[in-house]
Amino acid sequence: MIATVADIAALVQGRVIGDETTPITGFSGIREAQPGDLTFLADSRYERFLQNTPAAAVLVRPEISQASCPIIQVDNPYDAFLRVVMQFCPSLSPLSPGIHPSAIIGNNVKLGDNVTVGAHAYIGDNSVIGDRTVIYPNVFIGANCNVGTNSIIYSNVSIREHVEIGARCIIHCGAVIGSDGFGFAFRNGKHEKIPQVGTVIIGDDVEIGANTTIDRATFGKTVIGTGTKIDNLVQIGHNTVIGKHCIVCGNVGISGSAILGDYVTVAAGAGVAGHLEVGAQSTIAALSGVTKSLPPKSIVSGFPAVDHEMEKRMKASLRRLPEALKTIRSLEKRIVELETLLHARETENHR
Amino acid sequence: MIATVADIAALVQGRVIGDETTPITGFSGIREAQPGDLTFLADSRYERFLQNTPAAAVLVRPEISQASCPIIQVDNPYDAFLRVVMQFCPSLSPLSPGIHPSAIIGNNVKLGDNVTVGAHAYIGDNSVIGDRTVIYPNVFIGANCNVGTNSIIYSNVSIREHVEIGARCIIHCGAVIGSDGFGFAFRNGKHEKIPQVGTVIIGDDVEIGANTTIDRATFGKTVIGTGTKIDNLVQIGHNTVIGKHCIVCGNVGISGSAILGDYVTVAAGAGVAGHLEVGAQSTIAALSGVTKSLPPKSIVSGFPAVDHEMEKRMKASLRRLPEALKTIRSLEKRIVELETLLHARETENHR
Amino acid sequence: MIATVADIAALVQGRVIGDETTPITGFSGIREAQPGDLTFLADSRYERFLQNTPAAAVLVRPEISQASCPIIQVDNPYDAFLRVVMQFCPSLSPLSPGIHPSAIIGNNVKLGDNVTVGAHAYIGDNSVIGDRTVIYPNVFIGANCNVGTNSIIYSNVSIREHVEIGARCIIHCGAVIGSDGFGFAFRNGKHEKIPQVGTVIIGDDVEIGANTTIDRATFGKTVIGTGTKIDNLVQIGHNTVIGKHCIVCGNVGISGSAILGDYVTVAAGAGVAGHLEVGAQSTIAALSGVTKSLPPKSIVSGFPAVDHEMEKRMKASLRRLPEALKTIRSLEKRIVELETLLHARETENHR
Repeated sequence: MIATVADIAALVQGRVIGDETTPITGFSGIREAQPGDLTFLADSRYERFLQNTPAAAVLVRPEISQASCPIIQVDNPYDAFLRVVMQFCPSLSPLSPGIHPSAIIGNNVKLGDNVTVGAHAYIGDNSVIGDRTVIYPNVFIGANCNVGTNSIIYSNVSIREHVEIGARCIIHCGAVIGSDGFGFAFRNGKHEKIPQVGTVIIGDDVEIGANTTIDRATFGKTVIGTGTKIDNLVQIGHNTVIGKHCIVCGNVGISGSAILGDYVTVAAGAGVAGHLEVGAQSTIAALSGVTKSLPPKSIVSGFPAVDHEMEKRMKASLRRLPEALKTIRSLEKRIVELETLLHARETENHR
Repeated sequence: MIATVADIAALVQGRVIGDETTPITGFSGIREAQPGDLTFLADSRYERFLQNTPAAAVLVRPEISQASCPIIQVDNPYDAFLRVVMQFCPSLSPLSPGIHPSAIIGNNVKLGDNVTVGAHAYIGDNSVIGDRTVIYPNVFIGANCNVGTNSIIYSNVSIREHVEIGARCIIHCGAVIGSDGFGFAFRNGKHEKIPQVGTVIIGDDVEIGANTTIDRATFGKTVIGTGTKIDNLVQIGHNTVIGKHCIVCGNVGISGSAILGDYVTVAAGAGVAGHLEVGAQSTIAALSGVTKSLPPKSIVSGFPAVDHEMEKRMKASLRRLPEALKTIRSLEKRIVELETLLHARETENHR
Repeated sequence: MIATVADIAALVQGRVIGDETTPITGFSGIREAQPGDLTFLADSRYERFLQNTPAAAVLVRPEISQASCPIIQVDNPYDAFLRVVMQFCPSLSPLSPGIHPSAIIGNNVKLGDNVTVGAHAYIGDNSVIGDRTVIYPNVFIGANCNVGTNSIIYSNVSIREHVEIGARCIIHCGAVIGSDGFGFAFRNGKHEKIPQVGTVIIGDDVEIGANTTIDRATFGKTVIGTGTKIDNLVQIGHNTVIGKHCIVCGNVGISGSAILGDYVTVAAGAGVAGHLEVGAQSTIAALSGVTKSLPPKSIVSGFPAVDHEMEKRMKASLRRLPEALKTIRSLEKRIVELETLLHARETENHR
């Protein structure tokens, strides 16, 4: 048992209708609820599930007064549900604390208090790992890196040399931070490598998704702002600066030297060209291709990305185009008939 | 030598014309065939290669009776060729059997019979590995996982805690199974992490491509059905359910809470939005973007994805649009002329 | 200090105006220059930065004779800057030389002179590693591989068995070379795996990006030509042949059995279908989808990819389409009026 309905209600300051001693053993959305689950009704479209749900209890809005199980009335069921999960959810089998004997710790490495370093992890010379940070097995951290406190670096992550990561960050399995930017000078029929000697700076409270790649800058810094969350299989090009509290969804590619303001959202699969600026609070729709700078609060879609309303109009027009082409042909016929008729009349009148 | 032409013919019950003692030392498509290769003719467009192929022998249909080398007549040359390759191909340097001394095996881990665990692999507490499964070096398997029999987990794979993988599965290098879903609640100007405490269930006979990422569910399960094959660099979002015997090609992104029925094909680079259902036996074309639920046996393309025939019509119309715009302008001119003429006549007639 | 202005000028054969003893401690683009940095002016749009740059010195063209800091006049400032960086840039914390005791070296492995093998790296039986090649921690190299001289294999890379990599190659973190091609035969309602027993051949001077995946051929070879540079998160399908000195940008997907000629550029996010040929020196624009073979020197964009000029025309037309649909409707009205008028006249005339 995780908690009773009474415990839950106390945490969220909700009002219980039904047996408050009911035990809760899990959490679920309302359509997938199983016996013992706490669930919630936030979407009125799912109200019908209330009458025969196997759930142990449901968080509901005050207007709901009855279900096939105990209910807890709160102003915002979804918010309350999240608060409960964050509070009561058992940790997912954390790594054993301590420094695994097989871990390779370089020279002059500073490990903070209660740092966990997993089996076969590698931390390069001079690197600094903050208090309570957890490094999973098979992680590679190069020399002269700095990882803040309370961060989690999951397995098989590679953090190249001279990279800085903030506090309370989560770097998911397989991510690569600080790989060389993609830079070449074409000379004598060959692509000559431009040394990528810059770095990557990741702020606090950043989450980087699995197998995502963030390139180091050519000379300066690639920056990911505090509070930004990046999903899986995302590519961030060298010298790009991403603001604070941005959301970058899966499979996105952001070319080098792009600047994203704070609170920008880039939806799944979109591409952002380089050397441009996306204004704060802009939203880039899924599968778009941004090719020009955007002012703040832009909402764009399509490729090349334009104002979303304009793109919808163009797409709607495109659906009507096959028919319109037929109409043009028929109008042309009708004009020919009119011209013929008028010409015949002209001739007639001139006799 | 792998086999003689006679051996091959016996396996596929084919009829030999030519020297059946000819040794076979390799396999190839007919255009790339080298001396010693067994090859096949399945596509009549390549018939011309028969007369001067360096191959040692060719599998052909019964209508073909002659080539520059021995032939083996069978009803289906391609099928026969596959059967031969699957039978005679030497194993690709398998890992040495046994548990490598450098592998880290957690507490209460159950390893089945003849399990191979490579150097520096890590298996977390309570995990179960089925008979004859092979785990390559540098693999991370978290706690409380269950991997079925006869599976192969290639190098640098990360399988997070509480994940279940079936029998006869192949997980390719660098794949990540069970990373956190991408879930946040926006509160007080920040994206607060929603704990992702669900799991991933992968059925039997599933193949997951290199560097592909499959996120764990928020509360329930992300499911990959039996017999489904997923290519490289694919992202599967949390809570998605993929049916049986599906094909998901490279660079595809499937957002969270999508449901794909059995025998769905998603071609390369396509995107599928979340919270929708793709009916069984549907085909999603390359680079499409599916934004709505689809009935079974749908064939869609484009973005937003529509019936493929409709998309082809729209694309064909778009190619004709530049010309059509000119036509509209010229029609407008002709209408003005007609209106002018008629107006002049009207005036005339009224004098 | 890295060098003085005099040292720099000597290297690039430039003419100094100003204090040639000025020390240089870093490198930067002109807009981001900090005190101590050497920078350059290659783009006349940035000339205004010359008058108040904090940089220590600027490489300029001979027409520029004055700035707020010492200048070095050269014919090509950008080229000269690159030459300086390549010459003077400190190495980025190289790995300690030697074979780490925790590395697993298989039977009959041949390590060249001055090879570096990092902690927990694994090199399979019979593999050959060329002189001065550096293998980072947690790398997996399978059996029967051959890596040339002076190459760098970064951390967490997987190189499957029977793969060949040339000299002076750089394989970035997490890349996978030689994973199984995606090949299945559909029989009896299931996708049966076609063994992928071919190989991958990577030429000299190739760079493969982070988390990029290159599949082995079914029977023959997947080939990456000498001098080709591939960015991050790229998928190269089995049996594909990429020519020399190609550029493949991030998030690109190239399906199996494609052939790219020499000097082909594939921009970010594009897709190339299989079983086709892209002629040498072609350029494929970002986010395109190439579905047909292309002659040499093609410049294509869109999906399906067509000549770039044609695609621009179609896109420009599409922007005008909403207005054009309205025009068609109004033309139709005007034609109806003309027809009505003429018909009335006809009737009148016949009385």
